[in-house]
Amino acid sequence: MKATRQILKVDWHSVMDRRLGRHRLTSKDVSGLTSRVRSLIASVERERKTGLHRYRNLPHDAVMRQAVEDFAKSLSRKADNLVVLGIGGSALGNIALQTALNSPQYNLLSRAERGGPRLFVMDNVDPMHFAAMMEFVGGELPRTIFNVISKSGETAETASQFLIVQNWLVRKLGARRAAQQIVATTDAKSGTLRSIVEKNGYASLPVPDGVGGRFSVLSAVGLFSAAMCGIDIRSLLKGAADMDRLVRNPDWRRNPAAQLAIVNYLYYRRGQVMSVMMPYSNALYGLADWYRQLWAESLGKRFDATGKKEVFAGPTPIKALGTTDQHSQVQLYREGPNDKLITFLEVERFDRDVRIPHGSSDAPALAYLGGATLGQLLNAEKRATEMALLESERPCLTIRFPQINAYTVGQFIYLMEATTTLMGRLLGIDPYDQPGVELGKKITYHLMGRPGYEKMPRG
Amino acid sequence: MKATRQILKVDWHSVMDRRLGRHRLTSKDVSGLTSRVRSLIASVERERKTGLHRYRNLPHDAVMRQAVEDFAKSLSRKADNLVVLGIGGSALGNIALQTALNSPQYNLLSRAERGGPRLFVMDNVDPMHFAAMMEFVGGELPRTIFNVISKSGETAETASQFLIVQNWLVRKLGARRAAQQIVATTDAKSGTLRSIVEKNGYASLPVPDGVGGRFSVLSAVGLFSAAMCGIDIRSLLKGAADMDRLVRNPDWRRNPAAQLAIVNYLYYRRGQVMSVMMPYSNALYGLADWYRQLWAESLGKRFDATGKKEVFAGPTPIKALGTTDQHSQVQLYREGPNDKLITFLEVERFDRDVRIPHGSSDAPALAYLGGATLGQLLNAEKRATEMALLESERPCLTIRFPQINAYTVGQFIYLMEATTTLMGRLLGIDPYDQPGVELGKKITYHLMGRPGYEKMPRG
Repeated sequence: MKATRQILKVDWHSVMDRRLGRHRLTSKDVSGLTSRVRSLIASVERERKTGLHRYRNLPHDAVMRQAVEDFAKSLSRKADNLVVLGIGGSALGNIALQTALNSPQYNLLSRAERGGPRLFVMDNVDPMHFAAMMEFVGGELPRTIFNVISKSGETAETASQFLIVQNWLVRKLGARRAAQQIVATTDAKSGTLRSIVEKNGYASLPVPDGVGGRFSVLSAVGLFSAAMCGIDIRSLLKGAADMDRLVRNPDWRRNPAAQLAIVNYLYYRRGQVMSVMMPYSNALYGLADWYRQLWAESLGKRFDATGKKEVFAGPTPIKALGTTDQHSQVQLYREGPNDKLITFLEVERFDRDVRIPHGSSDAPALAYLGGATLGQLLNAEKRATEMALLESERPCLTIRFPQINAYTVGQFIYLMEATTTLMGRLLGIDPYDQPGVELGKKITYHLMGRPGYEKMPRG
Repeated sequence: MKATRQILKVDWHSVMDRRLGRHRLTSKDVSGLTSRVRSLIASVERERKTGLHRYRNLPHDAVMRQAVEDFAKSLSRKADNLVVLGIGGSALGNIALQTALNSPQYNLLSRAERGGPRLFVMDNVDPMHFAAMMEFVGGELPRTIFNVISKSGETAETASQFLIVQNWLVRKLGARRAAQQIVATTDAKSGTLRSIVEKNGYASLPVPDGVGGRFSVLSAVGLFSAAMCGIDIRSLLKGAADMDRLVRNPDWRRNPAAQLAIVNYLYYRRGQVMSVMMPYSNALYGLADWYRQLWAESLGKRFDATGKKEVFAGPTPIKALGTTDQHSQVQLYREGPNDKLITFLEVERFDRDVRIPHGSSDAPALAYLGGATLGQLLNAEKRATEMALLESERPCLTIRFPQINAYTVGQFIYLMEATTTLMGRLLGIDPYDQPGVELGKKITYHLMGRPGYEKMPRG
């Protein structure tokens, strides 16, 4: 298969379909934005050289990649379980890579079938959830690695999990052995977790400077657990690097991020305030959840980029799964308010497929299914849903994966990140901050009795 | 513990909080709806006696419950794996019950720890997902039960799965043995799957008449897999039956479904067009997904109940998870457009909790966490998020679970179903049909070459 065949494609012809009526985009709508998008792409490229948009350089960091690979290689064989302690950007990327690129039954497989440790990503402080993990890995504690991920080490959820695990390991295995079971992914120089690492001699990997959590999956944050579980992070980064070439192109016709940003921006301004990402693939569903954070936290902003004008911007990202949600959400998507843009993820070729046998005489009504494969049915249902949406004037577009593999998943991640930057610029907001989460953190500190927060914080 | 302490409570005081400013509900807003709601509750009760709203009688059907219990008891010990073949209302309830009431690591536990077979709910036709299931259970095929759930048997996804599994079992185990591994949950009298059952002598359980898929979790559809996996379906139905008494009350002050419907309806009309269900509990997250179907498919309608007036109604249900989504969605919820009503699910007492140790001298910045439990932190974060939302004038309310158990989960299911009926009536639409999904099914038939669908169907 030629390499070009392995490139993701944004297929936006449906947004110009005549069946959409007044919800159709015209060439004029698009051309009204293209010169602005062209100059935004150019300014992003200029700004990269001054140290902005640092996530854009992650796929090109061969030193970081090699360090992660070597470290994972040295540890993977010693581990039956890998427990990630992290939340938000320190968990969603890890889950998405594992879901996309390893078996859905991965944790149930034997060690030989898995090729790496079982993976548990603890992205909450639900006590029953955490206790069940402890109970399960407790029987194999000497062969369990804990990867705590936090830039500062002060995220309340991750810090709590870490304190519990550290204490538990020291009690069960002693301090010296405990230190060998902990890998911290944290700021390279300073912060609470960094100082814990130094005092205890834990192994560590760096959280890169100037890269927000939601843009960090292609750093050690997301790559270490992936490499431990046998995912080809070299192909992943290669896919991202190749996508970098495409999304730098000032010509929107050849730039998939520009295409996505234009379509998303135009529909957001027209009242399609919800952006539904609907993969027709269970493996890609975790990426839709990762995208939810990327989109919501980057674009949901009260003030514009000057900090002076109130804009209350932000499309709401929603994850859905085809065909499953045809039987749950499509009734609303077709007949409810016309307030959504649907982005399908479609897979052209599945690595494994299952053929439906020709039915016995039992069920003549089902004879039409015989001889087809599940993959064919899945993709026929995607096309059917798309056509049914168009008949109801509901806009949709498709991102097409030639196959699901580390190379295409790397492309997708980078494509959505680059699209987010462009969307932020089109909306006139700062896509890299998250001021709205601070108040909740401070109130939590107050409720938990942290010194310095004796008074109830207000907005 | 007194039984009254085990009753769910709708806490809507926050929607009247003065911090909400113009997004606050006043007593006048509420009282403007109460007489209408009172009469809707009365009319629903009258209509029940004429055979409408049949899902309402499921918790009282002791014969059905006993049949499911007995059948599950006879099979459970023979099975190491239970594979549910179903989609939409034939899968979401099963997943929700399992997620809520069994360990998050259930499938990884030993047979003795589990107390029932592993559970795999195949709610899609993704070929890689299905192939992975086949590969895993293939080694234990004689100890694997397949429960195919479809009222008609013609749902393309479920029918395809069934044809594959039936053929596979017959090839591997022979027809006679294969028949012992299949349990069909289907129409008691007619339909494609019913005739397959009769011809092959499969065991079967009934899908009740007049109960749509999304309202069927408390029938054999949802109960069989639950009972097989050790869930106390008697308590589940008792919870639902006890909730039936509450939601019949014409006084909205004592009727939690009336309270939820009033708050949801008022905010939907004001522009809070998204309804976010955000459990602070991993176990309850599957119920939020189940609710997504209930709400979207019941309330998302193009026409009013007369079928004549176009209304394009329907709030969009969204699932979120606390604390996890504080680090993903709350930035948008606080700072983006004020277009959401957040319904928290809160758990007062967790069956298991984990204490955070007093930190070593390593990390003075984390000392404030020491001595608290994860459950305390989780609930403090919920309160902090609620307060932060109120400071930004974002409306929210809470459904409080005294504990998570079959009794409270049964209450919750019934409460949300009864609320859906009331919401449908307030919106003036039919909550029980789903005309919008038909076109997609027909186009799928066309694309798959089903006789009778040679011409491309149009909307």
